[in-house]
Amino acid sequence: MHIFYALSPLLFVGSLAGLIDISSHWMTDLKEGICVDEFWLTQEQCCWKSENVTFENPNDCPKWRSWSQLLLNQSEGAFPYIVNYILYILWALFFSLLAVLLVRNFAPYACGSGIPEIKTILSGFIIRGYLGKWTLIIKTITLGLAVSSGLSLGKEGPLIHVACCCGNILCHLFTKYRRNEAKRREVLSAAAAAGVSVAFGAPIGGVLFSLEEVSYYFPMKTLWRSFFAALVAAFTLRSINPFGNSRLVLFYVEFHTPWHLLELIPFILLGIFGGLWGAFFIRANIAWCKRRKTTKLGRYPVLEVLAVTAITAVLAFPNEYTRISSSELISELFNDCSLLDSSKLCDYKNDDVNTTNGGILPDRPASKGVYTALWQLSLALIFKAVITIFTFGMKVPSGLFIPSMAVGAIMGRLMGISVEQLAYYHHDWAIFKGWCSQGADCITPGLYAMVGAAACLGGATRMTVSLVVIMFELTGGLEYIVPLMAAAMTSKWVADALGRESIYDAHIHLNGYPFLEAKEEFSHKTLAMDVMRPRHNDPSLTVLTQDSMTVGDIEAAINETTYSGFPIVVSRESQRLVGFVLRRDLIISIESARKKQDGIVSASRIYFSEYTPPQPPTSPASLKLRTIMDLSPFTITDQTPMEIVVDIFRKLGLRQCLVTHNGRLLGIITKKDVLKHIAQMANQDPDSILFN
Amino acid sequence: MHIFYALSPLLFVGSLAGLIDISSHWMTDLKEGICVDEFWLTQEQCCWKSENVTFENPNDCPKWRSWSQLLLNQSEGAFPYIVNYILYILWALFFSLLAVLLVRNFAPYACGSGIPEIKTILSGFIIRGYLGKWTLIIKTITLGLAVSSGLSLGKEGPLIHVACCCGNILCHLFTKYRRNEAKRREVLSAAAAAGVSVAFGAPIGGVLFSLEEVSYYFPMKTLWRSFFAALVAAFTLRSINPFGNSRLVLFYVEFHTPWHLLELIPFILLGIFGGLWGAFFIRANIAWCKRRKTTKLGRYPVLEVLAVTAITAVLAFPNEYTRISSSELISELFNDCSLLDSSKLCDYKNDDVNTTNGGILPDRPASKGVYTALWQLSLALIFKAVITIFTFGMKVPSGLFIPSMAVGAIMGRLMGISVEQLAYYHHDWAIFKGWCSQGADCITPGLYAMVGAAACLGGATRMTVSLVVIMFELTGGLEYIVPLMAAAMTSKWVADALGRESIYDAHIHLNGYPFLEAKEEFSHKTLAMDVMRPRHNDPSLTVLTQDSMTVGDIEAAINETTYSGFPIVVSRESQRLVGFVLRRDLIISIESARKKQDGIVSASRIYFSEYTPPQPPTSPASLKLRTIMDLSPFTITDQTPMEIVVDIFRKLGLRQCLVTHNGRLLGIITKKDVLKHIAQMANQDPDSILFN
Repeated sequence: MHIFYALSPLLFVGSLAGLIDISSHWMTDLKEGICVDEFWLTQEQCCWKSENVTFENPNDCPKWRSWSQLLLNQSEGAFPYIVNYILYILWALFFSLLAVLLVRNFAPYACGSGIPEIKTILSGFIIRGYLGKWTLIIKTITLGLAVSSGLSLGKEGPLIHVACCCGNILCHLFTKYRRNEAKRREVLSAAAAAGVSVAFGAPIGGVLFSLEEVSYYFPMKTLWRSFFAALVAAFTLRSINPFGNSRLVLFYVEFHTPWHLLELIPFILLGIFGGLWGAFFIRANIAWCKRRKTTKLGRYPVLEVLAVTAITAVLAFPNEYTRISSSELISELFNDCSLLDSSKLCDYKNDDVNTTNGGILPDRPASKGVYTALWQLSLALIFKAVITIFTFGMKVPSGLFIPSMAVGAIMGRLMGISVEQLAYYHHDWAIFKGWCSQGADCITPGLYAMVGAAACLGGATRMTVSLVVIMFELTGGLEYIVPLMAAAMTSKWVADALGRESIYDAHIHLNGYPFLEAKEEFSHKTLAMDVMRPRHNDPSLTVLTQDSMTVGDIEAAINETTYSGFPIVVSRESQRLVGFVLRRDLIISIESARKKQDGIVSASRIYFSEYTPPQPPTSPASLKLRTIMDLSPFTITDQTPMEIVVDIFRKLGLRQCLVTHNGRLLGIITKKDVLKHIAQMANQDPDSILFN
Repeated sequence: MHIFYALSPLLFVGSLAGLIDISSHWMTDLKEGICVDEFWLTQEQCCWKSENVTFENPNDCPKWRSWSQLLLNQSEGAFPYIVNYILYILWALFFSLLAVLLVRNFAPYACGSGIPEIKTILSGFIIRGYLGKWTLIIKTITLGLAVSSGLSLGKEGPLIHVACCCGNILCHLFTKYRRNEAKRREVLSAAAAAGVSVAFGAPIGGVLFSLEEVSYYFPMKTLWRSFFAALVAAFTLRSINPFGNSRLVLFYVEFHTPWHLLELIPFILLGIFGGLWGAFFIRANIAWCKRRKTTKLGRYPVLEVLAVTAITAVLAFPNEYTRISSSELISELFNDCSLLDSSKLCDYKNDDVNTTNGGILPDRPASKGVYTALWQLSLALIFKAVITIFTFGMKVPSGLFIPSMAVGAIMGRLMGISVEQLAYYHHDWAIFKGWCSQGADCITPGLYAMVGAAACLGGATRMTVSLVVIMFELTGGLEYIVPLMAAAMTSKWVADALGRESIYDAHIHLNGYPFLEAKEEFSHKTLAMDVMRPRHNDPSLTVLTQDSMTVGDIEAAINETTYSGFPIVVSRESQRLVGFVLRRDLIISIESARKKQDGIVSASRIYFSEYTPPQPPTSPASLKLRTIMDLSPFTITDQTPMEIVVDIFRKLGLRQCLVTHNGRLLGIITKKDVLKHIAQMANQDPDSILFN
């Protein structure tokens, strides 16, 4: 029951997501103009309230003024265009400057997507402050700013980080969770599910994402809680209704047109494109991030953000498909053209359309607008594909979901329109025979955009089930699961063939986080004795004896080494293991004994044993430290295959493990040793791994 | 890649499901009549082909003849009714007799639902033949027969068993899976998902069911494979199209009417009913099954099945809601009444209906037909609720999903109609104000039936997320997730308060399967030393030494004990552990050495050590057995809390674990010891647990 009190406030996550949505909409529109009299309204809200908007004149909205209209009272011509252009760039720079300064000065952890770090935290590594309240506040504010600045980034990944911060802060309110690391991780897994749920309006997809991608341990009882958290968050967001369409997402679509089996060919081609793009993006982005780390570039994060923003704004403004926000672009690309749609993408020739045909709109020949849209979209594709490489990883909150979906959606729409026109002009070809005759509605370019978006997202993140389920929840149609799966699968295979790591794993690797990958099997034939320390020629393991060492001996052992713990043995000769004691506990106990306990000097004996032999009256008082010793340290034999050792470390979440041979203590294996060994076996640099 | 070859033939599962569906439809209809000239057609197919069927006369189908029409050329009156009645009973008895005889004589494992056993198998227990080809064949055939006999059982649970049999048999075709127990379990998890997928047409729900209820270890890489398997199976079934509606399930519904927040009150009441029914059902069914086990009843399975079938048929025929199959009943109860629906459940007064009202059908006053339906449904509710207790667990394949959903759907529909009429006649009451005014379509009785079905299914099986997702996939509407969740949650809480175990866990318990529950936490403060054997006063542990025992000594140890393995120590004095050897391997090695190796006699020394000291020439040849020894046996210390031991056994799937103290071997803990200890701590009889 308790967990529900802790999770219910996850409606907070829904509220934050709504807040970010509304504010970023308003700020995005602010780049182009303002609603006079009611400046707090977005363009849509402003014009929706206006009474002059009629069906014929959707854009005639007197209250909304572009900057040129407001400043010069002019809207046509070159000069007003330039004024609008410059103000667009200035606003973008202002938003991104604010964002990067807030991040740099108040919460350095608020930058990036946060998913690599959350994966690492859930695997047992501690990054202090990463899920703190400052990170939460600053990330929430700067996320809206970063999205509004027009940079090629999304809010989905960072929302997961925000949700985890909420979950972590809530944990602090309850003793049960504050004390118990495992329970806290369960709450964080649930929070991650809630984050995806609000990001996409996909509660089931959110739970599966948390399960598949983010979480490390996912006990089954967490499933229900995650689902509950995801649902509460989603419904909070829905009641805030940021898009005014009673839907959780901007790009909700409801197709009904069926697809034909032969269309799997273009879908698989889109999958291949997605995989190629994903693999290329990961390589290029990692190369750029390495450059940032190793060269002077890393020293000027503010300048970098401003430069990328400026380039983005300068290049984005002239092309209407890049000027609008990425999510609006995706929404437009997913859209299926109706007869009355007036956008360029829907500019088809309607001469011979028989509107009485049961509401089915047949495939039509493209008109001039569609062709214009095609080359503008091609330019947008190149622009988005390249600029995202430089954007992801900068010192602002930046998610990858939306940019990669945008790339895929553009490619998909381009292919969709091509196949549609091909089918229209060549409906007598053998492959179109029978299902795509003249006057039939056989190709839906919006569906291609959707499949393309899934393919690119899959190529970059290597999500599988959760990707398909998220897309399925967006469209609400079970019938599109097969196209989506075909694309997701192809994309994953192609991308995996070019590089095993997802973008998140690549960033974990780049940052050297000690993350023990749970998906890959360790299949080398090494044994525990090959990995344990001390190695063959090293000095033997530092051990403490249970009853023969003095306070001075142990202090010396502490000062001479930097190990975080010491095994305790019966005697140095027998090397029979008794327990394990943490360095920290030893230092604290000895210090406090020296202060508070009478007669504890350097010559005092320390006893870890149960039984303390009677002391001669002349000797100094002895110190009993059995209580601080871990009596059940984890042991394996030196002959244990590393395959099993890795499995044990993963499943039990160990930090270290003692190695014995014939009952004698021989050495120790820490998580770091395991990680280094795995890196070595994969021919990677073992020294790049951080550890706390 | 390999796994896909192994899983692709899971389309076999889809085909089998289609086969069962079609045959059971035909046989169910056979109980009432036959299609003349084309006897292989079901009633629906027979009448669909007939040209005389018009919209006004849906039942006028000359080719379909009831038995009385065929035999007596009469259809009205008491005598034909009795003839039909008797033939209905005879056919039912025939089908069930055939089913129980096939099960008893050819595949005793084919009875029941199979889910408890599959859970146990996936947790590491081996039941030889349980997933074999005979079980597969007989279960497939008898499942159709059992469903057709009209017994209160469903085909969903058994379909999971059938799918797992398919998976297991496929594993045998590939060396990779035949040899590796863990990999095989992964395939079985995926197969279980495929089974649910075809049973309900819910691929995502199937994966989650496998994850939540059935599987024990569910590595993340299995997720994608399960999803793939579920989808392949579902699409195979769909292309077979057994229901002729392009849908995977008989009771697919597509509601569009929204629900009001206040309706959560009746939904929660349904949840409480579901929980109460679930808990009552489990207690009653377990009590009956215990009686079957302990009394003479268990000796006459055929008679039992015939008796229950006879009672079911006699009571079911007069009431039209019990005469039809349970899935048809559910389908009818889920259905939302349209204006032209002519069934009794839709017999509303249509006087003041304004059909131009945008297609919305307002709530209407009930007419005579609805009231007749109400009391018939009440009788059906009592009948189904009681007879299912005696049916589940008989020696025929029997699933619980459909019967419990039927009970819930009846209760839900009854409540839905009541609320609807209440709202119609009292729309001025405060609670109905604002959302349920006159002429509005505010209550959908079909939705209540759906919620009720979810509640009862949840009460019996304690499914949570998977239940909601399966129901959501049936309806295709994200908007009903909240009502379904509210009901499922209430139902689980109420049922859990009355008894912790789901019906499957209760049956696992009843049969004494060694199943280590992964959901419940072990929270007692006992230590490994309290559980390990030998206990305090027992003789010490039987150990072998690595280099001081002869063939005769070891054969004596084998003959004196029944342990399945022996620890090997350096010497009896030091008790330092070297390894662990299995009884089976020892017997085989010694036997083959005695036969094939020269000079091996009872006095021959056996060496488990690496180094074999030179033997005096007079002594007999020695036997080196290091290769059969497990060099990395799992050890824990005697001070390890049982909480951690239970966790290790679960996560690593251990069968035994050695216990040491200060580096000396002290004892052993087997999985059976752990299970007995858990049972003891829960005040249950520890001796009821089987073990192989």
